[in-house]
Amino acid sequence: MTSVINVNLPTQSYEIAIAPASLDQIGQSLAGLKLGKKVLLVSNPTIFKHFGKIAVDSLEAAGFQVASYCLPAGERYKTLNSIQKLYDIALENRLERSSTMVALGGGVIGDMTGFAAATWLRGINVVQVPTTLLAMVDSAIGGKTGVNHPHGKNLIGAFHQPRFVLIDTQVLKTLPVRELRAGMAEVIKYGVIWDAELFNQLEQSKRLDQLRYIKPELMDAILTRSCQAKADVVGKDEKEGGLRAILNYGHTVGHAVESLTNYRLLKHGEAVGIGMVAAGQIAVNLGLWQQADADRQNALIEKAGLPTKLPAGLDIEGIIEALQLDKKVKDGKVRFVLPTQIGVVTVTDEVTSDHIRQVLQKM
Amino acid sequence: MTSVINVNLPTQSYEIAIAPASLDQIGQSLAGLKLGKKVLLVSNPTIFKHFGKIAVDSLEAAGFQVASYCLPAGERYKTLNSIQKLYDIALENRLERSSTMVALGGGVIGDMTGFAAATWLRGINVVQVPTTLLAMVDSAIGGKTGVNHPHGKNLIGAFHQPRFVLIDTQVLKTLPVRELRAGMAEVIKYGVIWDAELFNQLEQSKRLDQLRYIKPELMDAILTRSCQAKADVVGKDEKEGGLRAILNYGHTVGHAVESLTNYRLLKHGEAVGIGMVAAGQIAVNLGLWQQADADRQNALIEKAGLPTKLPAGLDIEGIIEALQLDKKVKDGKVRFVLPTQIGVVTVTDEVTSDHIRQVLQKM
Repeated sequence: MTSVINVNLPTQSYEIAIAPASLDQIGQSLAGLKLGKKVLLVSNPTIFKHFGKIAVDSLEAAGFQVASYCLPAGERYKTLNSIQKLYDIALENRLERSSTMVALGGGVIGDMTGFAAATWLRGINVVQVPTTLLAMVDSAIGGKTGVNHPHGKNLIGAFHQPRFVLIDTQVLKTLPVRELRAGMAEVIKYGVIWDAELFNQLEQSKRLDQLRYIKPELMDAILTRSCQAKADVVGKDEKEGGLRAILNYGHTVGHAVESLTNYRLLKHGEAVGIGMVAAGQIAVNLGLWQQADADRQNALIEKAGLPTKLPAGLDIEGIIEALQLDKKVKDGKVRFVLPTQIGVVTVTDEVTSDHIRQVLQKM
Repeated sequence: MTSVINVNLPTQSYEIAIAPASLDQIGQSLAGLKLGKKVLLVSNPTIFKHFGKIAVDSLEAAGFQVASYCLPAGERYKTLNSIQKLYDIALENRLERSSTMVALGGGVIGDMTGFAAATWLRGINVVQVPTTLLAMVDSAIGGKTGVNHPHGKNLIGAFHQPRFVLIDTQVLKTLPVRELRAGMAEVIKYGVIWDAELFNQLEQSKRLDQLRYIKPELMDAILTRSCQAKADVVGKDEKEGGLRAILNYGHTVGHAVESLTNYRLLKHGEAVGIGMVAAGQIAVNLGLWQQADADRQNALIEKAGLPTKLPAGLDIEGIIEALQLDKKVKDGKVRFVLPTQIGVVTVTDEVTSDHIRQVLQKM
């Protein structure tokens, strides 16, 4: 069964196709998009070993001229140096304005490939083929691309929408369990900020921490409802002028924690889980949210096998300082996304360092 | 007298204000644009010495919090390394999404500041204050930003429209004569590709090679008609899907010549002048253009004190090879903009290496 979700944008709309074993159809899918002949497939060594040949064979069978390149895996390689590598490969392969980069991998590969495509020849096509749950439900959709600055995550980047997003659900079978759990953090996020029905479905599952315990129908709902939530929000506010900021729920403290642990200790999704626990409690302390609902959220995060406490020994003042570097700071005030009910959030800049300190000290 | 030219674009329109001694009004001009408080002024040491204080004082008087940074002057510093410097400065000064970078300088400063603004926090505001004739009539308008790759000019970049363009005509008084001439190449280009009346006015002037020989009314016409031409073309085709390509007249061979001489021997405008002579002759040889009109064009280029011959000892096969790296290549074919009358051009991919070789061998 294939689900197709449309991302409707003023200048360029595109489809997200969700189907099992669809990777070997990628060539045909792209053939309909009026792209140039040349494709640069970007991946990492592990993913490429599993799925590279399937994708390349399908693209070549559809008439594309395909080059491939693997970047090393991991958030710490999400740097301008990696982008320069991609520029060199783009030049070697004489990519043209009509050419396409295909990102086959998780969030790091997707963000970097998207940014290289956004800035090579002032913008060439990119197609996202996410291979982690997190990339499928979040980072592959919506056009945010970028790399990290040594002092802050995703500070360097651009908006550059993909021409197409292909989600092959079979790929999840080889996904390490820790990656599945990290992705589940973003799924829980959609439940809290947008889709109470998804939240309820997640609550009904006995376990969320391993693929084999998640029923196929629930996995379908997780993917389609999450992608739909992201498409809805991005369609209403492509460049984060307003509404889109709600997608950053849990990311404010999350980013700071990732930065202070040098992007090595925690997966992005794990940090988001911790950030949601923190933001939820701030909301409760401010009288915006019921403690009972925060507890329901935290129970889901735990059920997904995710941490709900700060890593031991982390400097709380360091977190508060790092928040000032957040992209969402305006006139020196950190903006927080806070829940008011399951499925509804608000954005506020009324959260003080004291509010944050008080919550973090108890985590 | 202030002339205001509107650049009308689907997502964001902006004004080009042309007036003498307007730099000390920059603060007031920006105050009306609903920008954030923080401004990073980017310049080079020479320009900043002349005009930095005027701009900073005016911005501060209007309530902005201003930081300044100078990049070294020259095309050979138009690199990702310089952009990384700007990222570091942006971080140090805690620029926010609502903050603004102001580019005070020529094309190199404008392109780099624009690219840094396009990619910091996925895009912050940029205001262009061009200080060379070339930047005033061309590079400051239209949103093309970028840096050079070691193997090709402007291969790395993004479209990022300015919020405002301020042209202070007084600034031209301190412009070195060679820079004035280089800018005149782009002015002549507008005459050839778009505005026959501008072409005629340029022909009526006895000299075009020094500011003091150019009558004030002609200088007004040069600035306003050139900016209007650029605004017209960009307004019809922001991202170079079609029409905008005509602005690359003279740039195809021009870029290749610049690249082969390592961006050191020739100013960009000088290379464009040489490129126009080449493209004009290719058009004549293909039967598209009258030799008499090509001669009129070449006479204007000479009158502006610009070279019309290839630099001695340049490898013609090297130029032909470099053309394959041009951003305008499609399916391996180099696209040329060729005149058919004064004020009218066509775009073709029917120019072969033999056509190019034949013309370059005689230059």
